[in-house]
Amino acid sequence: MQDASNKAWSGRFAEPVSDLVKRFTASVEFDKRLAEFDIEGSLAHAQMLNKVGVLSDDDLSAISAGMAAILEEIRAGKFEWSVDLEDVHMNIERRLTDRIGDAGKRLHTGRSRNDQVATDVRLYLRAAIDTLVVLVKDLQSALIELAEKNIATAMPGFTHLQVAQPVTFGHHLLAYVEMLERDRERLIDGRKRVNRLPLGAAALAGTSYPIDRHMVASLLGFDGVCENSLDAVSDRDFAIEFCATASLIMTHLSRLSEELILWMNPRFGFIDLADRFCTGSSIMPQKKNPDIPELVRGKTGRINGNLMALLTLMKSQPLAYNKDNQEDKEPLFDTIDTLIATLRVYADMMRGVVVKPEAMRRALRQGFATATDLADYLVKRGLAFRDAHEAVAQAVRYAETARKDLAELTLVELRSFSPLIGEDIFEFLTIEGSLAARDHVGGTAPQQVKAAIARAKQRLTST
Amino acid sequence: MQDASNKAWSGRFAEPVSDLVKRFTASVEFDKRLAEFDIEGSLAHAQMLNKVGVLSDDDLSAISAGMAAILEEIRAGKFEWSVDLEDVHMNIERRLTDRIGDAGKRLHTGRSRNDQVATDVRLYLRAAIDTLVVLVKDLQSALIELAEKNIATAMPGFTHLQVAQPVTFGHHLLAYVEMLERDRERLIDGRKRVNRLPLGAAALAGTSYPIDRHMVASLLGFDGVCENSLDAVSDRDFAIEFCATASLIMTHLSRLSEELILWMNPRFGFIDLADRFCTGSSIMPQKKNPDIPELVRGKTGRINGNLMALLTLMKSQPLAYNKDNQEDKEPLFDTIDTLIATLRVYADMMRGVVVKPEAMRRALRQGFATATDLADYLVKRGLAFRDAHEAVAQAVRYAETARKDLAELTLVELRSFSPLIGEDIFEFLTIEGSLAARDHVGGTAPQQVKAAIARAKQRLTST
Amino acid sequence: MQDASNKAWSGRFAEPVSDLVKRFTASVEFDKRLAEFDIEGSLAHAQMLNKVGVLSDDDLSAISAGMAAILEEIRAGKFEWSVDLEDVHMNIERRLTDRIGDAGKRLHTGRSRNDQVATDVRLYLRAAIDTLVVLVKDLQSALIELAEKNIATAMPGFTHLQVAQPVTFGHHLLAYVEMLERDRERLIDGRKRVNRLPLGAAALAGTSYPIDRHMVASLLGFDGVCENSLDAVSDRDFAIEFCATASLIMTHLSRLSEELILWMNPRFGFIDLADRFCTGSSIMPQKKNPDIPELVRGKTGRINGNLMALLTLMKSQPLAYNKDNQEDKEPLFDTIDTLIATLRVYADMMRGVVVKPEAMRRALRQGFATATDLADYLVKRGLAFRDAHEAVAQAVRYAETARKDLAELTLVELRSFSPLIGEDIFEFLTIEGSLAARDHVGGTAPQQVKAAIARAKQRLTST
Amino acid sequence: MQDASNKAWSGRFAEPVSDLVKRFTASVEFDKRLAEFDIEGSLAHAQMLNKVGVLSDDDLSAISAGMAAILEEIRAGKFEWSVDLEDVHMNIERRLTDRIGDAGKRLHTGRSRNDQVATDVRLYLRAAIDTLVVLVKDLQSALIELAEKNIATAMPGFTHLQVAQPVTFGHHLLAYVEMLERDRERLIDGRKRVNRLPLGAAALAGTSYPIDRHMVASLLGFDGVCENSLDAVSDRDFAIEFCATASLIMTHLSRLSEELILWMNPRFGFIDLADRFCTGSSIMPQKKNPDIPELVRGKTGRINGNLMALLTLMKSQPLAYNKDNQEDKEPLFDTIDTLIATLRVYADMMRGVVVKPEAMRRALRQGFATATDLADYLVKRGLAFRDAHEAVAQAVRYAETARKDLAELTLVELRSFSPLIGEDIFEFLTIEGSLAARDHVGGTAPQQVKAAIARAKQRLTST
Repeated sequence: MQDASNKAWSGRFAEPVSDLVKRFTASVEFDKRLAEFDIEGSLAHAQMLNKVGVLSDDDLSAISAGMAAILEEIRAGKFEWSVDLEDVHMNIERRLTDRIGDAGKRLHTGRSRNDQVATDVRLYLRAAIDTLVVLVKDLQSALIELAEKNIATAMPGFTHLQVAQPVTFGHHLLAYVEMLERDRERLIDGRKRVNRLPLGAAALAGTSYPIDRHMVASLLGFDGVCENSLDAVSDRDFAIEFCATASLIMTHLSRLSEELILWMNPRFGFIDLADRFCTGSSIMPQKKNPDIPELVRGKTGRINGNLMALLTLMKSQPLAYNKDNQEDKEPLFDTIDTLIATLRVYADMMRGVVVKPEAMRRALRQGFATATDLADYLVKRGLAFRDAHEAVAQAVRYAETARKDLAELTLVELRSFSPLIGEDIFEFLTIEGSLAARDHVGGTAPQQVKAAIARAKQRLTST
Repeated sequence: MQDASNKAWSGRFAEPVSDLVKRFTASVEFDKRLAEFDIEGSLAHAQMLNKVGVLSDDDLSAISAGMAAILEEIRAGKFEWSVDLEDVHMNIERRLTDRIGDAGKRLHTGRSRNDQVATDVRLYLRAAIDTLVVLVKDLQSALIELAEKNIATAMPGFTHLQVAQPVTFGHHLLAYVEMLERDRERLIDGRKRVNRLPLGAAALAGTSYPIDRHMVASLLGFDGVCENSLDAVSDRDFAIEFCATASLIMTHLSRLSEELILWMNPRFGFIDLADRFCTGSSIMPQKKNPDIPELVRGKTGRINGNLMALLTLMKSQPLAYNKDNQEDKEPLFDTIDTLIATLRVYADMMRGVVVKPEAMRRALRQGFATATDLADYLVKRGLAFRDAHEAVAQAVRYAETARKDLAELTLVELRSFSPLIGEDIFEFLTIEGSLAARDHVGGTAPQQVKAAIARAKQRLTST
Repeated sequence: MQDASNKAWSGRFAEPVSDLVKRFTASVEFDKRLAEFDIEGSLAHAQMLNKVGVLSDDDLSAISAGMAAILEEIRAGKFEWSVDLEDVHMNIERRLTDRIGDAGKRLHTGRSRNDQVATDVRLYLRAAIDTLVVLVKDLQSALIELAEKNIATAMPGFTHLQVAQPVTFGHHLLAYVEMLERDRERLIDGRKRVNRLPLGAAALAGTSYPIDRHMVASLLGFDGVCENSLDAVSDRDFAIEFCATASLIMTHLSRLSEELILWMNPRFGFIDLADRFCTGSSIMPQKKNPDIPELVRGKTGRINGNLMALLTLMKSQPLAYNKDNQEDKEPLFDTIDTLIATLRVYADMMRGVVVKPEAMRRALRQGFATATDLADYLVKRGLAFRDAHEAVAQAVRYAETARKDLAELTLVELRSFSPLIGEDIFEFLTIEGSLAARDHVGGTAPQQVKAAIARAKQRLTST
Repeated sequence: MQDASNKAWSGRFAEPVSDLVKRFTASVEFDKRLAEFDIEGSLAHAQMLNKVGVLSDDDLSAISAGMAAILEEIRAGKFEWSVDLEDVHMNIERRLTDRIGDAGKRLHTGRSRNDQVATDVRLYLRAAIDTLVVLVKDLQSALIELAEKNIATAMPGFTHLQVAQPVTFGHHLLAYVEMLERDRERLIDGRKRVNRLPLGAAALAGTSYPIDRHMVASLLGFDGVCENSLDAVSDRDFAIEFCATASLIMTHLSRLSEELILWMNPRFGFIDLADRFCTGSSIMPQKKNPDIPELVRGKTGRINGNLMALLTLMKSQPLAYNKDNQEDKEPLFDTIDTLIATLRVYADMMRGVVVKPEAMRRALRQGFATATDLADYLVKRGLAFRDAHEAVAQAVRYAETARKDLAELTLVELRSFSPLIGEDIFEFLTIEGSLAARDHVGGTAPQQVKAAIARAKQRLTST
């Protein structure tokens, strides 16, 4: 069996070396997904060449018709991609020439694959960003919907995973809405730098044809042109910036995933995920595992890895285009695919979350969540904060030994830690009292959460 | 000797363990650099507490005076930092209380170290960004100055480090001006997300005091407040975004550094760096090494590492604040320090670059840099681009064997590859002809370079 | 205040630029920690030069005496390090020449700073590895001690953080002993590649003096010499390999830290950490936070970042030595410092863990931990595994609705899911029955845990 | 056109959500490549179950026959993989049960997918390592072959990319042989930690069947068993260690690639690569680009990214198995694929390198490569090294102004810098003299290079 497996490996090596080289350098297997954008870019280029007098009307017509037919072939899955033709550009150009003859050969006038591929990648990424902005918004909406149902649902707010103070579940969810809002802003800010036309840079120096780059930019919906040809064909910082934003999105989702997994643990039991987002075990019949959040947490690594791949790729590259840059595509494509799938699944999953308020409240009873409220009470009655903090720390130590919550101590017991404590203390030590007290913008008081939801909704509709 | 060195190590372990724990958890050694911002934040907080009636006028006066004195102590290097007091916040608060008594204890009312440190870091980073924006601009200016002197200085443009087409040195330098322009935009875009006030989030849920967060935001120059308290104390995405931008800046400088090192190699000899940016060798008396660009290239690793450190740090952290976040500071501070030092040295170094146009021109003569111009010539005379490309490839092969440049072939020789070639061909095969032909926005024609410089200068003055 | 802080930044820029260059390129601030190893290496080099006749007996005596005095100065903290002298090597050499005159100048014969620094770093790292191997063993011992007290302490084994099957706490702890065992092996494996002498490579090509590299290797305790001079001065893969091992150590500790933090959460309450490893809150008087595990979890980022820094550093560096390599030290030193401090604190902390078996058992009662045992029971009575799995899944669904554990169902209830179930079933559904059943090497049965502890102890004493 | 492309994106979303979840969690698309190893592991498991009396002889026969048939289907490409069946394990098991009935259902007795997949991955990685060790050796051989032809071919040795001292091309190549030797050692060292059997850990705690893990280990060629079941199913450090070694291999190749690219530049022209490893340009007819080294340099990023992906993946994962770990496969597989293809192409490419000794020698004449030899000469005549260094530095400055190499100065000129210089100086200032002088182990003297080659060959045959 060992031998067999070794043979399985060595079997790969039977192929003639020249094929290996070909496959090592060819990119068509992964860059063919740029095909529609490649054609879109070619058509705009052809229109411009025609307008400036480099391409005849007949040639333009032939190219347009040829490309329309090729696009159909591609969409129908009938286009035959050839590794011999290296990449998406040569595959399409060859097919065009096969179909329409010399006009096809004239299409490449005044451009190079260097600026062509940069254009394709930017068009592709721009479309992806537009999709992602919508998906982020949809996930924000799902979170807001859930928050809206839980404006006043009390749960323990943790710091250091220790019970800190009561918060509402709605407030907790809105923290992620804020994170995603910044991520969305980042996508949009980065889009400005994606949305500039490299075409016209040709190989690296521009071209001797009288091209009109602004016309092409306008046809393709770009905001402007890349102002330096060497920069246009060689830099990929726009893709790296996108991947950094992607890392932040996944980092944020890894945090929410960690919490969902925690909340699904029976000791917490704060929520339940719909069955279709969970799987069982091949050996343990009782298991219901939160697979989706676990996978998303794991996929954070992949996205961080893609970012690091691209940063390493660009490090120390001299101007202008180097073949290294062919390696920009797979990490970028994988990042986009992962983000799209993750955001879609996540929004759907959040809409299926079942909240268990009793379990949350049960957890709140452990951990002296209202100790800060007691300290604040004392401060308002004149004690300096640091002294109040000390008095409450002693009360907590006492209550811990007595196995009671602070609200369960008697007035006499409480007053033994400070004579400033009066009968009104108990309304401050309840969970509801604690929540309601945090009544300022950003605070967890239910009416603040309600207002925050209103603002968040407003942002979603206005952008 | 081995023993001695082992003892050197084990000597560290003699200290009592409790000290080790203390030092392991204390942050004052590195967070004391936040001191001025910590005081600035405290003063704004105190003013607000006074306005909303939580802090008396007398307390505010005492705090203001006390803080002014402490600030002086710190600036004079006379403040005694204590590891026992853990961090910058406790050190300053203790000193304040020592100076002014109970009023000092009342300062911490309505806030927590969690929102306090988040505020300090944002103030610090904002100031750093403002400094960096100026430094990036200064480096851009230095590059533009050099470009301006070399608008028409011909050099080989490389792709794959092979001679591709002639470009001008000014054009080449402007590529980096463009990269830095995007980096500057990124710094400014990210600043929006830095410049929001976390104070008021308290530990995680807000506070029961009637605070006015908008007033504090306004006093500290923030654009607005963090809208969710849990998010405010726990996320560090603003720092990660900054570090990602820093990685791009260093990546861009690593590319320029690679080129400077290459150009300093005697085979190239395109430039010379001023002596004060180079060092010699302890063993080889003839050496003059481009230390600065080499170090900058190396420091790219450090900055990428810091980015990865912060991404790893935040992965999977449940809400809200966790002690993990104490580890956010050193990578961030190191990134800022490195960027500031690098940008300063770089701008100065670029102003000392001596250009050697003859060496550039010598290099242009190898590699058939005007082959594309010959192909374009044929296309303009009616040949399809792909056919022209083929004809020129044969001419190049011929010239290579004949050890001549294309411009050195006779008209007869040239015409053997295409009868379309006429006597006017030689004006296209010269370097100047090739440069001048790339006459469109983004192209390397000297008049385009001149226009690009004008636009770049305009941007620098307008932003 | 804003102005003041801006001034704080710009204040840095008042210094004359030449100082900035000096500080940008100098390394003495961080490489002075190599001093003892630098002297050790110099003395071995001098002895060899003397033996091969390049250095006189008098010179050797003078150098030895001078170095001894310098070593004392350094250890006493009286050595004055100068940034003007760039690095640790020049500082010491200059001081030697000041002390003993021309003999000091002759010490550098036949070597270069390139091979000198490579030697210093290897000596330093070798000592660090030796220290770390001891510290890893000590942490393993601490874990084994705790495991030994908890050979049969039942706790829920989780997969997907869902209750899976009962395990013993001792068994759980031994998982980390295994991880650390592999890490220790990695340190030792990597040490072989650290422990080779680069000295003699000189600047890059070797030296024209009749040096005896094997003698130097022997004097310094190296296993052999680097066999190629270009490789010797330029590669840092030995440091990267070490940093990769460090990342695994921290990754393993991040996992244990995650669990400690979880177990300290009041919903779990499986353990308590000694007070001196925890801190409180400045605002919440009741808090006891597991700072150490949180910090260690966070420091994982820093160590991964250092690894990435070094990998980025070395990428694409042409032979031989480049100044980039000066950037190798800080990430390496920081990795060593962090590992040493972390391992020490961790071993001590684990020795202070208080186990709470009742809380573990309480958690075991939720989640149907013995469902697999019921399935296995059925299989042993003849059902195919997949069918047994299905029958038990139905029983679990029934018990969940009835809010009972499997062991709390009646025989009649149980038999409704399979007639194969007999009266003996209940001994298999108990926690103890489940544990005892996993009785093979690597299984959680207490007697297997005991045997595993014995084997682990044996390994610690034999290596 | 914009709309069309948006539709292309949104087209993905038309599928019903449940399918999305299925595809999000399914792994069969990438883990099916484990199929042969999965079957190999299952057969060993079945043999063991039979031996310990859990599986009947008939069942074993049926399973063996069934698996043989399935293996054939897979190899013939006729096996129908189903995403509904999630992963490779369930696909094969279902097919087995379809073929042989209940015996198929009994195969999964005493194991879980958790230990099954860990076993498959280890078998797969072990085979990959064995392949890679052979491929690294082959590349070393190719380098040695080339070195052997260039034992005395002089070229400039660079530090800081400045001419430092003469080295031989053979010596230069051997530096990479050394790097790869350490990489090979690392693969072999890491293999020990891969080659341990996780099977028997079952889901996480072991199994209640009387399994014989040592028998399975022996059948599968493992060196031993994983000693702790929780560790066995959850850790992936063996894969991370491999990926770290992979990063070093690629880092080493990125360095050689950088040099090949540099040497192919016409200013250097030190070598030529065979045409089949280069490509041309779609626009510039004269181009011959070193695609392979460029791509390899770029792929370094991908491999570093995979390492970072796995480190991020494992960070903070609590025991035992979590679904996150499903994400371990793609980075690992991609790393293996990339390494195998890269090493193969590289060895072949190195065998096609054409060396151009005249160009190397031409480059040696620039940069005063023998300045160190002049200094050494003076030292041997009694000058202290530091003083000799200073004298030569002045001579170089003089020669630079005179535009001569040191060897071109007259004796009178040379003596003006030191009266110690005699007539014999010129034999030391020649390239050959300089090379021959570095005559110690690791030095560049041709006879040392020859000896180093002999030792390297010896290592290749003995390991």
